[in-house]
Amino acid sequence: MNPRSAPPSPPIVLTFAASDPTGGAGMQADLMTLSALGCYPLSVMTALTVQDTVGVGSVLAVPADCVEEQARTLLADMPVAAFKMGLLGSIENIAVIAGIVADYPAIPLVLDPVLASGRGDELADDEMIAGLRELLLPLTTILTPNSLEARRLAEAADGFDAAADDGGEAQQPALAECAQKLLALGCQYVLLTGTHSNTERVINTLHRRGLGLVRSDAWDRLPGSYHGSGCTLASAIAASLACGLAVDEAVAVAQDYTWQSLAAGFRPGKGQFVPDRFFAARQRRAALDG
Amino acid sequence: MNPRSAPPSPPIVLTFAASDPTGGAGMQADLMTLSALGCYPLSVMTALTVQDTVGVGSVLAVPADCVEEQARTLLADMPVAAFKMGLLGSIENIAVIAGIVADYPAIPLVLDPVLASGRGDELADDEMIAGLRELLLPLTTILTPNSLEARRLAEAADGFDAAADDGGEAQQPALAECAQKLLALGCQYVLLTGTHSNTERVINTLHRRGLGLVRSDAWDRLPGSYHGSGCTLASAIAASLACGLAVDEAVAVAQDYTWQSLAAGFRPGKGQFVPDRFFAARQRRAALDG
Repeated sequence: MNPRSAPPSPPIVLTFAASDPTGGAGMQADLMTLSALGCYPLSVMTALTVQDTVGVGSVLAVPADCVEEQARTLLADMPVAAFKMGLLGSIENIAVIAGIVADYPAIPLVLDPVLASGRGDELADDEMIAGLRELLLPLTTILTPNSLEARRLAEAADGFDAAADDGGEAQQPALAECAQKLLALGCQYVLLTGTHSNTERVINTLHRRGLGLVRSDAWDRLPGSYHGSGCTLASAIAASLACGLAVDEAVAVAQDYTWQSLAAGFRPGKGQFVPDRFFAARQRRAALDG
Repeated sequence: MNPRSAPPSPPIVLTFAASDPTGGAGMQADLMTLSALGCYPLSVMTALTVQDTVGVGSVLAVPADCVEEQARTLLADMPVAAFKMGLLGSIENIAVIAGIVADYPAIPLVLDPVLASGRGDELADDEMIAGLRELLLPLTTILTPNSLEARRLAEAADGFDAAADDGGEAQQPALAECAQKLLALGCQYVLLTGTHSNTERVINTLHRRGLGLVRSDAWDRLPGSYHGSGCTLASAIAASLACGLAVDEAVAVAQDYTWQSLAAGFRPGKGQFVPDRFFAARQRRAALDG
């Protein structure tokens, strides 16, 4: 007990994610993004990865009982305002996590369906994809797949052939159809991100259950390759929801934040660029110094 | 490859630490502190803990080969400006980590000898304490024990009886003697922290090999109990060293930062307070809002 009058806790966001030692993606990216946006982050470790800025070496899933114990212990102690999920590591983890979030239906859930790294390393097998679709999508407030993830998740649903189109302007209708399939599986919103499409501009589209397309935004494509843009975007949405924004406003704020952190990104090693999630603080310091 | 002219990478700090899902201490505390102080954090996971703000439930050490693989992969890819170490999880991990840092003698090493949580949960056995003393202290730039940790580390060295004093004003000479013992074991500096002493004010003393006491600072003791103050201080020292400060300046900056983050701390759950590592950003936002 502390007798002093303490400030209130910032909004608390609980992330289920894998460790990325490079800090580019994963739990580390979530922690930095949530902190930069004024939230307090809790983190349940689902897997450990070995990687550098060039690629993923190996993935070691955390045992499901340890995942459950981490999460239940936190949830019994602290009020959580939003859940965010990234790489979950195993079908067993997906099952226990679905059981946990089902006990907290009032807490919004942002699901970034991490199936492969930004560099193409496979991070989920067919069983895990089926688990995401059947166990987690019905509990999801907003799903944030890129075009590859949207196709794989939708494809696996009742033989829908999303692979019929591949690239260019022609892909837009088929991707919208993917979004409808994913909404039909139970999530409330799907934010389809255009980072992995081969359109000239990056186009993100927000689809809402029962309404279809509700928002579309486009940016000039940044040159180069980035590690962790998907984690940053999904965490920024979770932070904005935890701060009380509605889903479409949260998406707008998170997209703007992510774009700025990418534009300010740097290259710490020999491989990909990483977003600078603290661009705002760094820009203020630079302005003061110069 | 990115054709645009990107900003340089911030100074990179590599932390070896355990996951604390509450965000109060451990790797999460390191990441937040390093980020708040303008560094880019890399993190090698040494152990997973289950805990809430009241206490530690369990600790699961990461296998030593996975610890080594994480670290070697990062070090081959990115230039590291400082190492920081917290809970290392097992004697096997201590041994492989000592082997790794011995290969990088030019990188300063801040060692926070985590032997128990701030709430008294035991986190290291006698074998691990011997490993810290014999394998890591000779490689350490600055060791940051509290009085309990200093006694246990020094005690174990050749039968020195640091337990002879217990508390009050009488403890100061014996603690200084502990510091001398620890310097004799090979570290360049010892920062003895007074958070766990029963003096009225918190007194930190910095001891340098060959010179003895070189700096002493005191603060009014904050009411209440905090989780993660040691991790925050050690990470802040590592950040300051990575930014190019000398050890005594780094200690001064880090102590000030830690005191401010504690004074701005909040209580997210039913147990201890946690430091607000982003107090500066939060204060700026609050000033702009009102």
